[in-house]
Amino acid sequence: MLKTVKHIGEQTVLLESMPGIIASAAVVGPKEGKGPLGINFDEVVDDPLCGQESFEMAEHMIFRRACEKCIANAGMEKGQVQALLGGDLLNQIMAASLSARELGIPFFGLYGACSTMTESLLLGAMLCDGGYFDPVLCAAGSHFCTAERQYRFPLEYGCQRTPSAQWTVTGAGAHMLARGRGKVRIPMGTVGRVIDLGVTDANNMGAAMAPAAADTILHHLLDTGRTLADYDQFVTGDLGAVGSRLLYDLLGKNGVELSGKKHTDCGLMIFDKDQDVHAGGSGCGCAASVLRGYILPNLEMGHWKRVAFMATGALLSTTSSQQGETIPGVAHLVVLEREA
Amino acid sequence: MLKTVKHIGEQTVLLESMPGIIASAAVVGPKEGKGPLGINFDEVVDDPLCGQESFEMAEHMIFRRACEKCIANAGMEKGQVQALLGGDLLNQIMAASLSARELGIPFFGLYGACSTMTESLLLGAMLCDGGYFDPVLCAAGSHFCTAERQYRFPLEYGCQRTPSAQWTVTGAGAHMLARGRGKVRIPMGTVGRVIDLGVTDANNMGAAMAPAAADTILHHLLDTGRTLADYDQFVTGDLGAVGSRLLYDLLGKNGVELSGKKHTDCGLMIFDKDQDVHAGGSGCGCAASVLRGYILPNLEMGHWKRVAFMATGALLSTTSSQQGETIPGVAHLVVLEREA
Repeated sequence: MLKTVKHIGEQTVLLESMPGIIASAAVVGPKEGKGPLGINFDEVVDDPLCGQESFEMAEHMIFRRACEKCIANAGMEKGQVQALLGGDLLNQIMAASLSARELGIPFFGLYGACSTMTESLLLGAMLCDGGYFDPVLCAAGSHFCTAERQYRFPLEYGCQRTPSAQWTVTGAGAHMLARGRGKVRIPMGTVGRVIDLGVTDANNMGAAMAPAAADTILHHLLDTGRTLADYDQFVTGDLGAVGSRLLYDLLGKNGVELSGKKHTDCGLMIFDKDQDVHAGGSGCGCAASVLRGYILPNLEMGHWKRVAFMATGALLSTTSSQQGETIPGVAHLVVLEREA
Repeated sequence: MLKTVKHIGEQTVLLESMPGIIASAAVVGPKEGKGPLGINFDEVVDDPLCGQESFEMAEHMIFRRACEKCIANAGMEKGQVQALLGGDLLNQIMAASLSARELGIPFFGLYGACSTMTESLLLGAMLCDGGYFDPVLCAAGSHFCTAERQYRFPLEYGCQRTPSAQWTVTGAGAHMLARGRGKVRIPMGTVGRVIDLGVTDANNMGAAMAPAAADTILHHLLDTGRTLADYDQFVTGDLGAVGSRLLYDLLGKNGVELSGKKHTDCGLMIFDKDQDVHAGGSGCGCAASVLRGYILPNLEMGHWKRVAFMATGALLSTTSSQQGETIPGVAHLVVLEREA
């Protein structure tokens, strides 16, 4: 049996059939709906509780609805989707697990914190390209109110937010991958390593994630022999204002001069400056919904031809933080290309 | 490009190159070391704290050591392993994430509760078979003291355990997969769906997982056209005494007569009856270490030729339970075959 080259360098895989995103959907909360990308989302819920009794159940509803809308946008029925790969920020990825229960689609549960969207796309693209599962639904979501309670303080405490704090996006994005189809394709991807430069501040996620983001970009360029010039844009998940500056610094020290000209961060796109979100948006749902509301439209309309899309995750655990551990980060990259 | 058939039925994939397990390792706690499989594990730690300041850090050490020993058993260096797929029961899969940080291996974080070992093997086998990553390290672990604190009560409370309660295994197992190599191969696997028949008792994990286990076995037989006669043994992860009986009942109602003659449960193997573990062992580390200590040796020595191995997970979340939700389950199956 002929084995084609599918692994290059240390961390990069080539997807010969070029799996593509054949449909997408995003469902977001009211604050996200009022942001600059509001009109591009499939649904803006007007109540952060979504008519549920808890924010966790609301998060689960938003996750499930994004999946259902994506399946509908693909013109499919649930039974036609061969696998769901997804996760969220809740302990035991409750929103994804409960959604998988109700959707009835074979399920691979993932935990990559805010890197989940590209972890899911990268794994999903390999499963599609290899012919194991096709189509595959990739999804990620988060909720401001549940993330604050679980990782920091319940909102009712009324804690002051620090300048470096980011605002977890209430929203979910779902993307359907199929082998060799779709306007936007995934010809390759780079899996991330867990990197930790010693950040301990749970209110500075951008700083915890930037080293992993830099590491993955550097490995991607090294593995592929490409330079920044090969891409129209590098889009990170939720580094925010603080993390983006750190990313430029870390890359600069390695001779790669990235700047705002060629870099966009989903966390800096989803909210307006006057929405008082401090260093920007964050959460699994940030990259997941901005992919639907901004990145894919720009590729589809021809503004960009090739983008390096990389969701970034801070593997923050309240338990490990309370035990004095630092916060490791991870970032997975997928290349998105408009089909000529 | 020729596309061979790799997906059959609804949930099953065929792995043409037959990825195999080329090395394994298990590191377990003192109680597991005193059990019937004790001598088959690579290391038995004599202190559940492993010299650390918390049980969570001990769990992390055990996870990392199992990975390191597996890499050594394969005669490899860390840098030769192309990807690590793994998870554990801690919030934010802390043990796996911190281990991945220290090992420096590109990392896909998974959350499948106690189904993690086969989720990891199934995904890992596809990544190997497809030629994307090779070799791939698949690992899962758990710790009795951290699981009790996180999911039920801190041990210091001295709560009485119910008869249906299971004892979370302190231990981790790591298994190295490579394309077309190894004495024991994975020719196919069946991904599970999330199934929930309404169990709410956090002290009866077996009952929460049995419906998912039955669903995956039934789909596997349907997808492949096989019967129980095609397997020497069905090995489940940690259904324990209660869950195993429920599995026989649920399968029986669907015309599949499984019994103790052709079924083994890792949770019923790892401890002796006089070790006072009530309904048996459980936890991600149970299936992971019993694979090393019992299943693989039986295959390698020729006692079994073909086994259906299925770790089973209860997607228990204290948050969702406190909000009145029931406990969904999931089970992933991989076929293990001795290479002729």
